[in-house]
Amino acid sequence: MREVAVIGVGMTKFGELWNTNLRSLFVEAALKALKDAGVDRLDSMYVGCMTSGLFAHQEHLGALMADYLGQKHLPAYRIESACASGGLAFRLGFIEVASGMSDIVLVGGVEKMHTGADVTDALSTASDSEYEAFLGITFPGLYAMIANAYMHKYRIPYKEFREKLAHVAVKNHEHGSKNPNAQFRMKITVDTVLNSTLVADPLRLMDCSPVTDGAACVVLAPVEIAKKLGKPVVKVIGSGAATSAIALAQRDDIAWLDVVEAAAKRAYDMAKITPKDIDLVELHDCFTIAEVCVLEALGFYEPGGAINAAYNGDTYIGGKLPVNTSGGLKAKGHPVGATGVAQIVEIVEQLRGNAGERQVKGAKRGLAQNMGGSGASSVVHILEVE
Amino acid sequence: MREVAVIGVGMTKFGELWNTNLRSLFVEAALKALKDAGVDRLDSMYVGCMTSGLFAHQEHLGALMADYLGQKHLPAYRIESACASGGLAFRLGFIEVASGMSDIVLVGGVEKMHTGADVTDALSTASDSEYEAFLGITFPGLYAMIANAYMHKYRIPYKEFREKLAHVAVKNHEHGSKNPNAQFRMKITVDTVLNSTLVADPLRLMDCSPVTDGAACVVLAPVEIAKKLGKPVVKVIGSGAATSAIALAQRDDIAWLDVVEAAAKRAYDMAKITPKDIDLVELHDCFTIAEVCVLEALGFYEPGGAINAAYNGDTYIGGKLPVNTSGGLKAKGHPVGATGVAQIVEIVEQLRGNAGERQVKGAKRGLAQNMGGSGASSVVHILEVE
Repeated sequence: MREVAVIGVGMTKFGELWNTNLRSLFVEAALKALKDAGVDRLDSMYVGCMTSGLFAHQEHLGALMADYLGQKHLPAYRIESACASGGLAFRLGFIEVASGMSDIVLVGGVEKMHTGADVTDALSTASDSEYEAFLGITFPGLYAMIANAYMHKYRIPYKEFREKLAHVAVKNHEHGSKNPNAQFRMKITVDTVLNSTLVADPLRLMDCSPVTDGAACVVLAPVEIAKKLGKPVVKVIGSGAATSAIALAQRDDIAWLDVVEAAAKRAYDMAKITPKDIDLVELHDCFTIAEVCVLEALGFYEPGGAINAAYNGDTYIGGKLPVNTSGGLKAKGHPVGATGVAQIVEIVEQLRGNAGERQVKGAKRGLAQNMGGSGASSVVHILEVE
Repeated sequence: MREVAVIGVGMTKFGELWNTNLRSLFVEAALKALKDAGVDRLDSMYVGCMTSGLFAHQEHLGALMADYLGQKHLPAYRIESACASGGLAFRLGFIEVASGMSDIVLVGGVEKMHTGADVTDALSTASDSEYEAFLGITFPGLYAMIANAYMHKYRIPYKEFREKLAHVAVKNHEHGSKNPNAQFRMKITVDTVLNSTLVADPLRLMDCSPVTDGAACVVLAPVEIAKKLGKPVVKVIGSGAATSAIALAQRDDIAWLDVVEAAAKRAYDMAKITPKDIDLVELHDCFTIAEVCVLEALGFYEPGGAINAAYNGDTYIGGKLPVNTSGGLKAKGHPVGATGVAQIVEIVEQLRGNAGERQVKGAKRGLAQNMGGSGASSVVHILEVE
């Protein structure tokens, strides 16, 4: 397999964007990535999208986006794995370039969630439709169960747990305030979170990622081509994917994301590194509790330890392991199919030293973790700048 | 890139299967393919499915199917390209094995279309939702426009055109009558077609593929592993994919499927062969007119010539180029996401000499062509038995 690099990145502003549509969002991000890469021809394209059928009554996104991008006869694929669609699209683009089948591959993710469709209903298709969604459970409900299990497993008093969890949202809004593409740029306090509407106990509105429209794209190429472009060469040194039981009730321990542990182990093994070699992380904080559980499954904290990460300041820009410098899903926004690719965009900007106010000084290696459902699928990538 | 072989195949019966569900269909076909291959561990899995969100209110099929197949932590992907979802899933599985990333990869396709959902509405998401579906056009309408364009371009009188087109359906039902997995096993006559309900002039009910539930799976491995299994080694020697304008109105000539021509050229080039080296074809006869246009775009007939193929008997089993020996989409059935994989299943059974009553004597090389929408995406594979 050949070494692969990210040679271009681009994304739209994330937000509630009523004046645009699915195809326009994708094409905007794709053109930005192509311009950044300095290429105009493509060999193949991957489009990560969760449920454009339910949100926008449009499937067949590979063909649609290749057409609207003006790339005649381009082989193009739509990849879906719920909220991990973007990350898995990136993995497949990486495999195609590594295989030698193609040189220049565009990987994008897109979701248009503000369309009038019932968002909670559409997102419920990421859970087990027959044994979870049919019975009325929603995603805030599923993650609330994970939060309760965590609290009980590690015997953390409710008030302490609740307050520490709030620090995850406070930190991600602090980071998002520095990101011009973020949906929410206002800073918040612990009180903002604790006084927000109760959604599914113990999760409140400000523990939940928002409903977002947006797209993000990257261009992949073999490292030998990347080296000729005169920019810092950001290589993909590790890729790991895994699945686990789709229904929460079928897992041994719902406070432990075994799917993330499995995907991360594969990525670390491929990269031949350990968690201590990572300088920054973009991870899947669809709810504040997810950031806590993911940090542990990635091996950065002992089980039960990551509840203190944001609270202690570790995961702030300038802390010992900056996490979600982009603002994460919470503040940057979470257009579900685009999120996995947007994470890669942030890591690349950081490793190139282009992250402006959000820059993590001296960052050499970044990790991106994307997740589907309540932890039924996950994908982890590790990028390194030469 | 490594050489890749198909080491196992399996499929469910196709039909109107109210007493089963999406996951059960997939798992049944997958277990059959695994048993046929003689393997029990997998490195990766691809699930082709068009619109389970709209049909069954379930996305996230990679995780769901890996879970129900009992393959803990298996990397798994859902691939969508409308009715070409299965064929593109096969292509990505092929690339993954060829790359060296994985050895044993399962590729499946599945669709549960009888669920109570509005089938015509769900399928319309394969067209341009904003410029076609929104205005009320349906797939029979789109292919009827293609049929009219063909008739006028080649100046064929309506009655002659109508009768010759009927022979495509007659031939595919004749083949389907020999396939125990086919949805329809009754033979029909030209009169059956000409007297069936008019759907979209000139297409009648018996020109249209049916609404079908079903799944099909294959197992891929490197050729060096396949050689140890003591069965005929069926290699993937060519793979080509392409997209074109999603909306019919945006194409230069709607009677010519440029997307099929582009995909086929890539597959022939990879295989280093020409159409005359092919012994049998499974192609995407979602409507009778599609079989005609695809045969021309694949290079088997001159433009305007393939209308005579079934009429002259060329494309029957025993003819000079047997086409859709399985019964095709018309008689075998068309569970949209499964079709591309089911085509591969038929080619492999034929090349192994296991096709029973349908066997094409001495078949060494088969071609499978799968298509999305009205010709916005297509994928072509060429398989050869050693």
